Amino acid sequence: MNGQEPQGEFGLIEWIRRRQVARPGSWTRLGIGDDCAILQPPSGRPILATTDMLMDGRHFVLERDGAEAAGYKALGVNLSDVAAMAGVPRVALIAVALPRGAAVAIAQGLHRGARAMADRFDVELVGGDTNAWDGPLVVAVTVLGEAADRGPVARSGARAGDAILVTGPLGGSLPSGRHLRPEPRVELALAMHQLAAIHAMIDVSDGLASDLGHILEESGGLGAILDADQIPIHADAMTASRTDGSVPLVRALSDGEDFELCLTVDPGDARRILGALPVVRQIGFVTAENARLLRFPDGQLEPLTARGFDHLRETT
Amino acid sequence: MNGQEPQGEFGLIEWIRRRQVARPGSWTRLGIGDDCAILQPPSGRPILATTDMLMDGRHFVLERDGAEAAGYKALGVNLSDVAAMAGVPRVALIAVALPRGAAVAIAQGLHRGARAMADRFDVELVGGDTNAWDGPLVVAVTVLGEAADRGPVARSGARAGDAILVTGPLGGSLPSGRHLRPEPRVELALAMHQLAAIHAMIDVSDGLASDLGHILEESGGLGAILDADQIPIHADAMTASRTDGSVPLVRALSDGEDFELCLTVDPGDARRILGALPVVRQIGFVTAENARLLRFPDGQLEPLTARGFDHLRETT
Repeated sequence: MNGQEPQGEFGLIEWIRRRQVARPGSWTRLGIGDDCAILQPPSGRPILATTDMLMDGRHFVLERDGAEAAGYKALGVNLSDVAAMAGVPRVALIAVALPRGAAVAIAQGLHRGARAMADRFDVELVGGDTNAWDGPLVVAVTVLGEAADRGPVARSGARAGDAILVTGPLGGSLPSGRHLRPEPRVELALAMHQLAAIHAMIDVSDGLASDLGHILEESGGLGAILDADQIPIHADAMTASRTDGSVPLVRALSDGEDFELCLTVDPGDARRILGALPVVRQIGFVTAENARLLRFPDGQLEPLTARGFDHLRETT
Repeated sequence: MNGQEPQGEFGLIEWIRRRQVARPGSWTRLGIGDDCAILQPPSGRPILATTDMLMDGRHFVLERDGAEAAGYKALGVNLSDVAAMAGVPRVALIAVALPRGAAVAIAQGLHRGARAMADRFDVELVGGDTNAWDGPLVVAVTVLGEAADRGPVARSGARAGDAILVTGPLGGSLPSGRHLRPEPRVELALAMHQLAAIHAMIDVSDGLASDLGHILEESGGLGAILDADQIPIHADAMTASRTDGSVPLVRALSDGEDFELCLTVDPGDARRILGALPVVRQIGFVTAENARLLRFPDGQLEPLTARGFDHLRETT
């Protein structure tokens, strides 16, 4: 329910979340509301589980992008959710509603795309469900994975004083079509988590401001100050700005479907990560006060929203 | 792709199945093509995983049946897949495409329905994905479970001479609306599997003749003789026959969405199960020759198809 009804979606998730019940012998270590559920079967290591549904016209356009792109993206966004827990994706199940008529050809295209993504991450396609109907193409993927040795990383572990990092440049993913080719940061998350205990992590699917907001809320209502000149802006955001007059920084803060990771770590650990992995950037730090601010190079502070900034309007 | 394109569906599943790759360290003990995948993580017991997608207008009619019924059924059919492996369902993930406008109310109805089914089987709803769009309601559920002590039951273990059992009366589920209230045979499967090693099992979702056919094919191309007067016919099939002139036995053999279990066991084990669990019925036996036959009380044999029988046409 992203896009037009974000408050509805988060309100709904909260409504569902309040209705969760812990049962005796429960597998559930972490339930609804994070990138993955964390499951602890009676024996063995914790298992990560995540599901994402993609619909024609919303997450891809079948006629323009083709079924292979839809399959590639559908698996990729789920792998990104496993990456956001510093997990290792292992298997995927894919359920589809196929437009009647071209059902088999579309299913084969989807499979080729999903398979190309799966092969990159040694993920096995172990099950699925195929249906034909008169509606548009819908693809629902579930991915299971395992936690890294250090354990899975939830959204809820940020602490005041933490450095806030992102794994790559942001913005312009939708207008450029890059959203169809997500690069799940599985290896990067594992490398960072091996260098240092990551406190909290999320993948940037709704937009940096919104997704960082989830970390801050889940961590007990913390705040953040981001440095405007440290936000890495993707070349696609620049290109889009030349076409439509949008502000690249606003795109970097608010565009969705970048599938980079946003994480918080101890400041000392941040230096270690930044030294070892130059692609990672520090963009700000976590504060104890429940306020999200953007700091401009001249020292001005403005509320961090997903929409835009007065300061930018004055200066651009 | 059940209903109008069954051959397309099974051909497609075979196409996908041939493209499965075993990887080093694979979790996959049993992949695409059974009711559940069987996964073996590096430690711990095997995990069962299954996914099923339900669409408005195909598996339920939102306007007539309501969102709660859709949620109840969507989880139920997945639990039935776990029952078909003699497994214990533990957790579910639910991804939805919600018609814009009534999205939140529909999501709440779905959740209430899924929750009612989940509560009956001590299943926890651990994750999901909510989306709104201009299309019809789509619900994709994934259920994870654990194998019973004796291990999971696949479709592929039937042997010539096995007794063929079903757990309840069949037919008329769709016209009566009973398909909206599946009764996953979880406890019954566990009870049977504790009494005797079940060789092969499937849930009756496409129709008995078709689903038994899967067992026979997966078990190396075996055959079966079913006794026409032993097939338990549901009262709903009788009711439907009075309305539309259909033949109750044909409905019992070919109607889908009954969600009873069809299984094969050693004949001695069959007697033990039938003695302990009167709801279970023996309907025939497995043969070495690759032929599926229906035997009438007068001794006549006819090919077992999902469509109808000459013998019945002569006598009715």
